[in-house]
Order: sequence, then structure tokens, then C-alpha cells
Amino acid sequence: MDKQKLNAILSAMEAESIPQIIISDPAVIFYLTGAWIHPGERLLVLYLNQNGNHRLLVNDLFRQTKDLGVEIQYYNDIQDGVEILSRFMDPAAPVAIDKSWPARFLLRLQGLNAASSYVNSSAIVDGVRQIKTPEEQEKMRIASRLNDGVMDQLVGILSEGHTELELKDILAKLYAGAGCQGFSFDPITAFAGNAADPHHEPDGSRGKYGDCVVLDIGGLKDDYCSDMTRTVFLGTVSDRQREIYEVVLEANRRGIAAAKPGNRMKDVDDAARSYIEERGFGKYFTHRTGHSIGLEVHEAGDVSAVNESIIRPGQCFSVEPGIYIPEENIGVRIEDLVLITKDGCEVLNHYPKELRVVPFPAEK
Amino acid sequence: MDKQKLNAILSAMEAESIPQIIISDPAVIFYLTGAWIHPGERLLVLYLNQNGNHRLLVNDLFRQTKDLGVEIQYYNDIQDGVEILSRFMDPAAPVAIDKSWPARFLLRLQGLNAASSYVNSSAIVDGVRQIKTPEEQEKMRIASRLNDGVMDQLVGILSEGHTELELKDILAKLYAGAGCQGFSFDPITAFAGNAADPHHEPDGSRGKYGDCVVLDIGGLKDDYCSDMTRTVFLGTVSDRQREIYEVVLEANRRGIAAAKPGNRMKDVDDAARSYIEERGFGKYFTHRTGHSIGLEVHEAGDVSAVNESIIRPGQCFSVEPGIYIPEENIGVRIEDLVLITKDGCEVLNHYPKELRVVPFPAEK
Repeated sequence: MDKQKLNAILSAMEAESIPQIIISDPAVIFYLTGAWIHPGERLLVLYLNQNGNHRLLVNDLFRQTKDLGVEIQYYNDIQDGVEILSRFMDPAAPVAIDKSWPARFLLRLQGLNAASSYVNSSAIVDGVRQIKTPEEQEKMRIASRLNDGVMDQLVGILSEGHTELELKDILAKLYAGAGCQGFSFDPITAFAGNAADPHHEPDGSRGKYGDCVVLDIGGLKDDYCSDMTRTVFLGTVSDRQREIYEVVLEANRRGIAAAKPGNRMKDVDDAARSYIEERGFGKYFTHRTGHSIGLEVHEAGDVSAVNESIIRPGQCFSVEPGIYIPEENIGVRIEDLVLITKDGCEVLNHYPKELRVVPFPAEK
Repeated sequence: MDKQKLNAILSAMEAESIPQIIISDPAVIFYLTGAWIHPGERLLVLYLNQNGNHRLLVNDLFRQTKDLGVEIQYYNDIQDGVEILSRFMDPAAPVAIDKSWPARFLLRLQGLNAASSYVNSSAIVDGVRQIKTPEEQEKMRIASRLNDGVMDQLVGILSEGHTELELKDILAKLYAGAGCQGFSFDPITAFAGNAADPHHEPDGSRGKYGDCVVLDIGGLKDDYCSDMTRTVFLGTVSDRQREIYEVVLEANRRGIAAAKPGNRMKDVDDAARSYIEERGFGKYFTHRTGHSIGLEVHEAGDVSAVNESIIRPGQCFSVEPGIYIPEENIGVRIEDLVLITKDGCEVLNHYPKELRVVPFPAEK
């Protein structure tokens, strides 16, 4: 196990007076052990205890060949893995539970009276993961640099008139060509009215002259995620589209300006949102301003009105305001990743965000 | 909501004396409402109560345009969705919880004292879902018929010498060409030693003369999954490979013969496993014999030594024994889906399973 990260987790547990913890998220287990194990629906748990009796519970199907620096307890499909886990636990002490652990395991553990109480481990684990180590920061930079390049290639072929799904297929090849392991999330390539749905899934739609195009894309490089959104226009841009674009761009800039240590996460949301509201588009900005990112594209730590936590150096999150007006076939979102520094932030994306119209034939 | 399926769930709740249930699995919500909602990490709950006060809790981002036959309660990113859910609940009665509900929601609900006790809903929901309706059965037949065709095309191009990853890319196109929505799971295309890892992920490996090739593939058609495995040989087959193949094939046939109403799920596992053990390969058959399948490729209801439940007409599951010997670079698995009938089973896959050697150039 990575001693530095392990000690950070154990210190955070101590601060919360929780002597034992159940970690089940494969990303967190990778974060600590360096091994990706994808157990599907089977039980996978890294159990940590302040007394040093750590255990990794793994199904026989996923035998590890490397030394992960933690004792491994294997179980098989005909054994009750949760019962085996409970034997290592202290029934008189509280336990922190991975926020994503499925209820079937948690209810079984509670039925075994394996701990005195059960709390969400998010405050412990997510707080540690949010602060990227210098090595992680460098990986985030590299991933976003590659994403800048892929965005450039993607925007360059919009004039060819591909469908949304064709663009997605092309994107897969662009990321492979850039040396990425794949997408960091299912990309959004959305024209016109589809762009007005923040979670549109690419379909057979083809762009038309005058359409906006939302491109929300990211790749996975060396296990770390990139994520950037640009909105461009095909052939021409209307005054209305330009107005909305400029509002979103200014909101993006204001959000980024508020992304600095000492501010709260909600201040970033407020900086972007209040400007959009002031300009009269408040009801068309229907989602939070951003999310933390790292090994996973959505990590704990929303940039939203309810997140009161103070921003700290080493955090990495997206700033992605948008305006979506389905009845006008308009959607605009502009997203950058920021890495918090000692006194501000480093913007990880460098692909230009000034309004851009790509060549596109007018309809006959 | 589908009245027939809803009533089956409510009856199963009554049998378990549970008046309220929290359903969160998007597949189960689709099963009941006909709407796919993919909420990512956000809360999505279909709450059912015997008193008829059903509610669907959905984040604002996923507004529904169709009438789903259930009252929808929307919430947004700055609201506490679980607290809103708890207002509809009866704190004096037990509640059944979706087996896959993340701990962050369950712990919060328990903290709100929203019910008198919390039980795993699997016995209620999975029992109902396991019995496919006639309409579902027909969809399973169609999906597997398409899979037979894709397997035929895939085996036909093995002689071309593609890498595992190239085969996976080709497969994606074959499923699209067959009218499928995509893969039903990440396919396994594994040569030689890789085939000896039951969960091998395709990589840049290329097959060689004399290799075994495990092809574990499935597509999604009309929301239902197919899943079939065949093992073939490149250019030639050794006596040892042939011996192992014939053992697995006979185990597959014995498992299928045991797949009938009145038998227990474990009897199917035992029929396949005991033959493999008898032939001396017991320790090389390292996984359960199969899994239920339908809307999801892995549904509740394992074909394993610990599943005592009685097989009923309408169930659909895989029978997929295998023998894996890494030190000999051999892996063989043969998998078919079966649909349980009144007095036996219908095998949904028709692609031949007799030992097959495909043309392949010998090495120079």
C-alpha cells in the first residue's frame, strides 16, 4: 500500500474517532494499493483498522500475483464473504462504510452486529482523495493536455457533417491515437435541440447550418481523467446564440476566478450562477457548476450551492456553467478543469474558448 | 406502470409482510415503468407502498415527458433527496431496500429513522424478475438468435489473425450490423494462456497455430441480453486440448439436462461440476456454473453450489462450465442460455458446440 496515502486515511479516521473502515470502491482500492480489481457484483473490501490489522477481501476469481502490501483474504462463490469480513472487525467499535457499498452487503453486516454503529466514510476518504498528490497533479495535467489536442481534431472535422454517433466513434479513435486508455466518460456530441439536454446521449442526428454543437469529452490517461466542454457553431451564429454564448463564457471565467483557497466550493457555483441569473437566464442553468475529478470523472466534492467546504490547494474540479433552452434549440456549455494552487488555480485546459464558427455549408 | 409486474411485486411484498419497498436499480425501474433513467450518482427511487401511495423520486435533470403511471416527485441538486423520500414513508413499518442501493443513501435513511427495520428486497424483487413473462421470453429468444449469427461471423474471421482487441472492435460492428444496441457485456476474446483466465480483458495478443480461443460474447437487443461462449482451436488441436474440450462439453450437456422445474439451481451446478471432478479436472473449474440473465446480463439467481432455490418455468440462466489450466496455456468454456419450460428447458443458443478447428497457418 502507498504509505503516504494510507497514513492520510488513518489520520482522517482518527480525527473522526472511527477505528475501522470498509473501503469497497475499486478506484479507492487502486488509489491505496496500485491494483485495479473489478469484482462485478462480487464482494471486494479493503478493511483498515487503526491497530494495523488491515485485510483485503478478494474473490478467488481475482487472485493477485503482486504483493500489494496488505494481507489478502480470499473467499469463493460458495462462502459468505461478509461473514468472513466480520471476523476481522471489532463489534464494539463504530465502522465507516464506503459510500457506494451496496445495501445487500451493508444489511448483512448489520445483521451480524459486526460494529457498534455504521457511518458514511465519505468525510474520511473523500477529503483525502480530493487533495491530489504532486504525482497525481502531473497526471491530471497530462490527461488534459491530450484532451486539448483531441478537441482540436474533433472541432476540425465538424465541417464533414458527421452524425453524433459517428463523432463518438471518431472520438474513440482520436483518444486511442493520443495514447489514452479510452473515454473517461461517455462523450456528449450534441447538435441544436439535443445540445439543450445537458445529458443527451449521441444518436443519429446530423448537424445543420446554424446549429450549436456541444462537445463534452474526456479521455483516460495513466488512470486519470480529463473532461472539457466546448460549444461551437456550424456555418453561422445568430445574435441570440452569440448573446447566450458570451453569458456562459463570462460565467465560466467568473467561476474560475472564484476557484481559490479560502473560498468555499459554493462560492464558485455562486460566481457563475449569479451572473447567469443577473443576465436573465437563471432558470436555464439547470445543473451544478462542476464536480471534482481525478481517478474517476465524478469524484466527491460538488461545485454546488450546498457545498460549504473550504477550497484547499491540490483540489481538482470542473467549472462548467451552461444555458439550455430546448424551445429555441439552443444549448451552450463551456467547461474547464482547474487545479487549486497556493493562491488561485491553474486552468488545465488550453483549447481556446472564444466563440467559434466552423465552416459549414448553408442549406439549399 | 406495468400492472401485471407491479401486482406480482406487491404480492411478493405481502408474502414477506413488508408493506413498503425502495427500488433503485434502473433496470427494475425500467421493468416496471418502461422508462430507462440513468441517474449516475444521483438518487433515483421508485417507492412502492401496499396502500397505493407509490412515488418515483427523480432528479430535476432527468425530467420525464411520458406518463409513467406513477406520481413523480422531482428534487434538485441542492435538496436532500433521501429526506424528501422519507416523508412518504411509514416510520412504524419495515422497508425492503434495493440490494444495490449505495450505503450513502441507506445510512442517511436509517439516520432519519424512516422505517422500523430494513431488509434486503432481493427475495421480493428478484423472485418476480426471474420468471420471464411470455413477452420477455420472446425477446430472449430473439437476442440469442442474433448472437448465434454474430458468433458464426466471428468464428469465420479467426483465420485472419486479428488481435484480441481487434476482434472486440469487429464484434462491436457485427452487433450493430445485426441490429443490436451494443454489447450486453464486455466481450472476452482470449487466446491460449489468456483463455485460462475466465475474466481476461482483450489485449494486443494475437493467436498462434495450436491455440485455443475462448469467445464469450453477447449483444443487447430490445433491452434484453444474450450471452454465449464457444471455444475453438487454431489450425490444429492436441490430444490434451481435445480431452479437456470433450469433458467441458459433456459437463455443459449434463448441466443443461439438469435444468428443469423441480430441480434446484445447485443441482445444475452439481451435474456439471461433479462430472468435471470425476474426470480429474475439479480444481480447474474455478467459478459457478452460471447466472440468471434478462434485462441485465447478470441477474440474481446463481447456478452455484449454494443456491438451494427450486427451478421454476420462465427462468432463464446460463450453463457455462469451464476448465482453466494457465500452466498449460489452456482454457475451455462452453456456455448456452436455457429458458425453463414446463418440463425441461429450451436451449436458446443454436450455434454448434462440437469441437471445431478453424483454418490457421502453421508457424514457420
